[in-house]
Amino acid sequence: MSAFDDLMGFTRETRALGAIMGRLNWDQETMMPKGAAEQRGEEFEALENVLHTRKSDPRLGDWLSSIDPSSLDAVSQAQLRHIRRSYERAVKIPARLAAELAKVTSMAQGVWAEARARDDFAHFAPMFEQVVALRREEAAALQQGTDHDLWDALHQDYEPGSSGAELDAMFGALRPRLVALRDKIMGADQPKGLTGTFDEAKQMALTTALAANFGYDFARGRIDKAVHPFSSGSGQDVRITTRTNPEDPFNSIYSTIHEVGHACYEQNINGDYLLTPLGEGVSMGVHESQSRIYENQLGRSRAFTEYLFGQMRDSFGDIGIDSAEGFYAAVNRVLPGYIRTESDEVQYNLHVLLRFDLERQIIGGDLEIADLPAAWDARFEADFGVKVDKISNGCLQDVHWPVGLFGYFPTYSLGNVYAGCLHQALRADVPDLDSALVKGDTAPATAWLAEHLQQFGGLREPRDTIVHACGFEPTEAPLLEYLEAKFAGIYGF
Amino acid sequence: MSAFDDLMGFTRETRALGAIMGRLNWDQETMMPKGAAEQRGEEFEALENVLHTRKSDPRLGDWLSSIDPSSLDAVSQAQLRHIRRSYERAVKIPARLAAELAKVTSMAQGVWAEARARDDFAHFAPMFEQVVALRREEAAALQQGTDHDLWDALHQDYEPGSSGAELDAMFGALRPRLVALRDKIMGADQPKGLTGTFDEAKQMALTTALAANFGYDFARGRIDKAVHPFSSGSGQDVRITTRTNPEDPFNSIYSTIHEVGHACYEQNINGDYLLTPLGEGVSMGVHESQSRIYENQLGRSRAFTEYLFGQMRDSFGDIGIDSAEGFYAAVNRVLPGYIRTESDEVQYNLHVLLRFDLERQIIGGDLEIADLPAAWDARFEADFGVKVDKISNGCLQDVHWPVGLFGYFPTYSLGNVYAGCLHQALRADVPDLDSALVKGDTAPATAWLAEHLQQFGGLREPRDTIVHACGFEPTEAPLLEYLEAKFAGIYGF
Repeated sequence: MSAFDDLMGFTRETRALGAIMGRLNWDQETMMPKGAAEQRGEEFEALENVLHTRKSDPRLGDWLSSIDPSSLDAVSQAQLRHIRRSYERAVKIPARLAAELAKVTSMAQGVWAEARARDDFAHFAPMFEQVVALRREEAAALQQGTDHDLWDALHQDYEPGSSGAELDAMFGALRPRLVALRDKIMGADQPKGLTGTFDEAKQMALTTALAANFGYDFARGRIDKAVHPFSSGSGQDVRITTRTNPEDPFNSIYSTIHEVGHACYEQNINGDYLLTPLGEGVSMGVHESQSRIYENQLGRSRAFTEYLFGQMRDSFGDIGIDSAEGFYAAVNRVLPGYIRTESDEVQYNLHVLLRFDLERQIIGGDLEIADLPAAWDARFEADFGVKVDKISNGCLQDVHWPVGLFGYFPTYSLGNVYAGCLHQALRADVPDLDSALVKGDTAPATAWLAEHLQQFGGLREPRDTIVHACGFEPTEAPLLEYLEAKFAGIYGF
Repeated sequence: MSAFDDLMGFTRETRALGAIMGRLNWDQETMMPKGAAEQRGEEFEALENVLHTRKSDPRLGDWLSSIDPSSLDAVSQAQLRHIRRSYERAVKIPARLAAELAKVTSMAQGVWAEARARDDFAHFAPMFEQVVALRREEAAALQQGTDHDLWDALHQDYEPGSSGAELDAMFGALRPRLVALRDKIMGADQPKGLTGTFDEAKQMALTTALAANFGYDFARGRIDKAVHPFSSGSGQDVRITTRTNPEDPFNSIYSTIHEVGHACYEQNINGDYLLTPLGEGVSMGVHESQSRIYENQLGRSRAFTEYLFGQMRDSFGDIGIDSAEGFYAAVNRVLPGYIRTESDEVQYNLHVLLRFDLERQIIGGDLEIADLPAAWDARFEADFGVKVDKISNGCLQDVHWPVGLFGYFPTYSLGNVYAGCLHQALRADVPDLDSALVKGDTAPATAWLAEHLQQFGGLREPRDTIVHACGFEPTEAPLLEYLEAKFAGIYGF
C-alpha cells in the first residue's frame, strides 16, 4: 500500500461515516419518533466527535507530506487537493474553539426561535454577539497563511476559490437592474393566481411523477414528507423531502423540482468517485445552479408549464385558470413580500444581496449587532420600496446567521448566476429544447447537464466546473437578460 | 472527573454510536433504496471499525484497573461489571481473527442462501467448515482464564452466566414431555382454521391497535413493514417492523405482539440508564421471555383471544369461525412442519433443543460438518415422527449457523422457560388477570412485568433478573404444566 492508498482508504471511511451522519439527519426530519430527541442529540454528538477527530488526524498530515502529487494522475491530484484543503483548514481550528462553536450555535438556534416568535430582537442579541465573536475568531484562525479577508476565510467552506471582492463586483452589476425590473413589475397589472383547494394525496402523486420527469432515480432515492424540503446524501442513496399545502400546490411542485435538481447532481456523479471527495457536488454555488435551473429555467419555462397545466387539470379539474398562457403567468407571479424563502425569480437575489452586504460588514467588524436591525430595514426599503413591519419579517427571519452560517448566503445568488450561464449554453447546444419540454420531456436538458457538469463532481474547482460546462467565463449578464426578457413578456412592458 | 466518570463518558459515546448502527440496520430493512446496497456495505464497515476499536481501547483497561469497585454504589458496580466483561472479551480476540470472521461470515450468508435455494448441502459445506473453524478459534481465545468449555465461551455473548451443562439438564427434562405432548396432539382431531382473505390495510390497522393494547409507546417508536419482523433500538427510540399476508392474519398479529414484547422491555427500562450498559435488555433469554409471554401466555390465552375474536370480526366480517372457543383453538393449532419459525408453542422448543444438542457437538469438535445432515435428520425423525424431505427443510433452514451464531439458539427456549416462570408468578400476584384480558386490557400484566422485571434493564445478571421478578428459582416445570394443561383443554385429552 502506498501513502496515497492509505490516505484514500482513511478518507473513504471518513466519508462513509459522514454519509451515516447525513442519513441520521434525514431520519430526524422524517421518521424519528417525537420522544427520541434527547437520545438523538447524544448520538449526533458522538458521531460528530468521531468525524471531527478524523478530519485533523495527524496521520493525514504524514500521508500528505509524503506524497508527491506529480506522480499522480489528474483524478488523484484532484482528490489530493480536496483532502489537503480540508486537513489544512481542520488543523487551524483549536479544539476549544470548535467545541465552543458547536455548543453556542446549538443553543443559539433555540433562543433565536424564541426571539423570532416574540418579535424581540433584544432577546437574541447577546447570543447573536457570541456567535459572531466565535465565528470571527474562527475566521482569524482560518485566515492564517492565506490572502483571504475574514469573510472570505469563512466563505471558503461553501465556495472554495470564490471571494467577496469578486462577488461584490458581480452583485454590484446585478442589483440595480433587478431593482429596476422589480419596480416595473410592481407598476404593472398582476396576473391571476390559482383558486381552489388541492388534495394533498394527489399533490404527492403529481410531485412524484414530476420528480421522475426530471430524471430522479428512485432506485437510488426516495421522497418523503417533512416540515422543510431538502435533499440529503450522495452517490447511491440520495433522498429528498417535500411538503404539501392544500391552498398552494406550487409550493410542493417547485420545491420538489428544486430538490430534484440537487439530488440529480449527486446521483449523476461518476460512480467511480463513490465515497471519495470527488463524489459529491463541488460547492454550494454549483449545487444551487442545478436546483435553480431545474426549478426555474426549465420548470417555470413557458414550454414546461404548458405541460404542467395539463397535468394540473388532469389531477385537480378546474384550477381557476383556463389557458396555458395564464397558467405560465400564475406560476411566475412576482408579489410583494418580506420573506426570502417565499420569494420569486426576480426578488430572490435582492434578498440575498442584502444579506451578503450586511454579513461582510458584520464579519469584517464594520457593523455591530446592535445596529443590524436599522441597517437591514434601511436596505430593505431601498431595494423593495416598503418598510419592514416587524423583526421576524426582517433580520430574524432566517436561521442561517443565528447558527453561524456566515459566508453561505451569496452561494444562492451565485448559483442563480451560474444557472443563467448554463441555461444560455444549453439553449445554444439544444435549440429545440422547448419541443421536448412542452411534452414534459426534460431529458435533452438534464442529459446535457449530466454530461457537461454533473458527472464530474469535485474534479474541477467550482468556477472551472461552470467554465467547462458553458465554454465561457460566468457573468451575471445571461441571468439578467433572461429575467428581463421573461418578465417583460409576462407583465407586458 | 474521576476515572469512573471518564469510563462512563467513553462508554456512553460508544453506546450512542452503537445505537446509530442499530438505526442503520433498521433503515436498510425498511427505507433504503434498492440501489444503495454497495454504499451501505461500506458505511456499515466504517462504523463497525469505529465500534470495534472503541471496545478494546486501551484507555478502558487503564480506567478499569484504577477504579476501586467497593467505592461505588450498586448501580455503578453493575455498570462496571458490564463494561469489564465486554472489555475483557474484546481484548482476547486478535484483530486478524475478528477481521477474518467478519469477512467469512458475510460471504457465507450469500453462499448459504444459494445452497438453500438449490437444496445443495455440498455447495455450502466448505464455507460452513470455515465458519465453524473460525468460531472454534474464537471460542478457544475467549475460554482463556475461565472455566467455560468452547461452546459456553461463545454462549456468554448472548446469555452471560449461563452454561451448556445447566441448559442440558433443563432441556433434558423438557424434551420427553414435549415429545409426548406432541404425539398426543397429533393423534387428536385438528380444530378448524380461519377461512377467507384478509385486507392488508385492515391488518395493519388492527396490528397497530394491538401494539397499543400491549402498551407500546408510539411517542418513542414506530411500526413499519419489512420482510422480517424485528424490534430495534433501546431507550427513547425503539422501532418494530411487521409484515402482512392476505391469507394469514395471525402472522402479522402474533409477530407484532412478539416484537412489542421485545420493544416494551426496552421502552420500560429506567430512564436513568439511557445509553449506559444497564439501559438495554440484559440477555437474549430474558428478552425472549418478554416477547414470548406477550405473544403466548397473554396473546394466545383463552381470555385475550376472546377479545381478539371480536376485533377480527369487526375488522374482517365473517372469518369462517363462529365461536370464541373455536377461535381460541384456531389460534393455537399445532400442525406438522419442518420449519422452526412457522412453529407453535408446543413444537417450537423441540426445534430449538435439536439445534442446541447438535451445535454443542459441532463446537465441541464431536460432530463434523459432513455428518451434520444425517445427525439432523435422525434427531428430527426421533422428535417429530417424520423424515426430513430436503435439506432446505433440514439443517440449511436457518441463517444462524451460516453466519456463525453458535450459542444463540438455546436462548429462545430459555426465554420460553423463563416466560413460563414469570407467567406463574404473574397469575399468583394478579389472580383476576383474565377479567382484564377478555376486554383487551393487558395493563395489569404489562404493568406487573414492567415493575418486576423490565425497569431494571441490566442491573442484575440474567438469571437473577428472573429470580427477582418471580421470587423463585426458574425451572422448566411451570412451562410444561402450562402447555400440558392448555393443549389438553384445546385437543380434549
